[in-house]
Amino acid sequence: MVITIGREFGSGGRELGRLLAEELGIDYYDKEIITEIAKHTELSEQYIKQVVEKNPHELFPISVAHTFSYIDAQSLQITRMIFMEQEKVIKEMAKASDCVIVGRCADYILQDFKPFKIFVYADMDSKVERCLKRNEKAEDMPRKKLIKKIKSIDKNRARYYNYYTGQKWGDILNYDICINTTNKDLKALAPHIAKMVKG
Amino acid sequence: MVITIGREFGSGGRELGRLLAEELGIDYYDKEIITEIAKHTELSEQYIKQVVEKNPHELFPISVAHTFSYIDAQSLQITRMIFMEQEKVIKEMAKASDCVIVGRCADYILQDFKPFKIFVYADMDSKVERCLKRNEKAEDMPRKKLIKKIKSIDKNRARYYNYYTGQKWGDILNYDICINTTNKDLKALAPHIAKMVKG
Repeated sequence: MVITIGREFGSGGRELGRLLAEELGIDYYDKEIITEIAKHTELSEQYIKQVVEKNPHELFPISVAHTFSYIDAQSLQITRMIFMEQEKVIKEMAKASDCVIVGRCADYILQDFKPFKIFVYADMDSKVERCLKRNEKAEDMPRKKLIKKIKSIDKNRARYYNYYTGQKWGDILNYDICINTTNKDLKALAPHIAKMVKG
Repeated sequence: MVITIGREFGSGGRELGRLLAEELGIDYYDKEIITEIAKHTELSEQYIKQVVEKNPHELFPISVAHTFSYIDAQSLQITRMIFMEQEKVIKEMAKASDCVIVGRCADYILQDFKPFKIFVYADMDSKVERCLKRNEKAEDMPRKKLIKKIKSIDKNRARYYNYYTGQKWGDILNYDICINTTNKDLKALAPHIAKMVKG
């Protein structure tokens, strides 16, 4: 049993993933993926995070010959290696045990495993509120700036996903179920979704 | 408790709605809405069905003055009356008892009732298969023609919904949950969704 979770920033997708894993008594992977890649590659977690969260168009400029190329051949090679490693790590995790994997195009990478694919989303007010609750730093940020940040993170997630999968991030046809967490109690929701996954 | 179901043609939304109503022991309304409007207006069910399933742009041409108007004032008045009656009937149903209502922009009409809003969808292969199973006539139709028909019905549903609600049909933010019925057993799914609705 493999569950993958795509999620809008601030929608509570990670929390829901953790609750689902607890409910089903299975493993949960999120930041652990970066840690694993670091172990395999001997690169720092910080560096890997930076690479995988970059805009893919920055990582692999399509028209290198026509524009100023600001990444040299070596760092391009490292970047490619990180992505291949990520794919390997995610597949190993899914092979090793039943698990919930959040983000990282896992739904696409694990398609042969026939995962149960969830997309978690919410309206902007609800996402702002969740960000304020879980991050004290966000409290000092003007609301407008916070909204801009949320949108920008999701834009990058969409770009990243679309680039690597050739699918459209958030397209409902790529998921088994899409859950709007606006005004929802995730703890109450998780047991029902867990049962749905078990079938 | 009011549950509204928007659904793609052939996705099994109606069947899921009926199963949910059975599971929760509450009323189910679908074609009954047309029957009720007929009772209230003394128009034939056939005529009402024809009106509410028409492209809204045909019903209320926006630039009447600039194009040939093929509906006279009287039939325009009847059409408006039918839509007002539909709204009244749906609100009366929701007031009278807990229920599941399929289609008819009920999610929008009943927003003050804070319904649990479900959108049901599936991939095209699965929708074609479902159409073939439930309708013998569809078997004689070439596959290409059937797909064209499915797409055309959904296009009309979208137009109808967008026109009357000012929202976008199938926009995930308008629903609490979106369910992909591709390769899913609706009978197995319904009890879990029922529990999710109950909270």
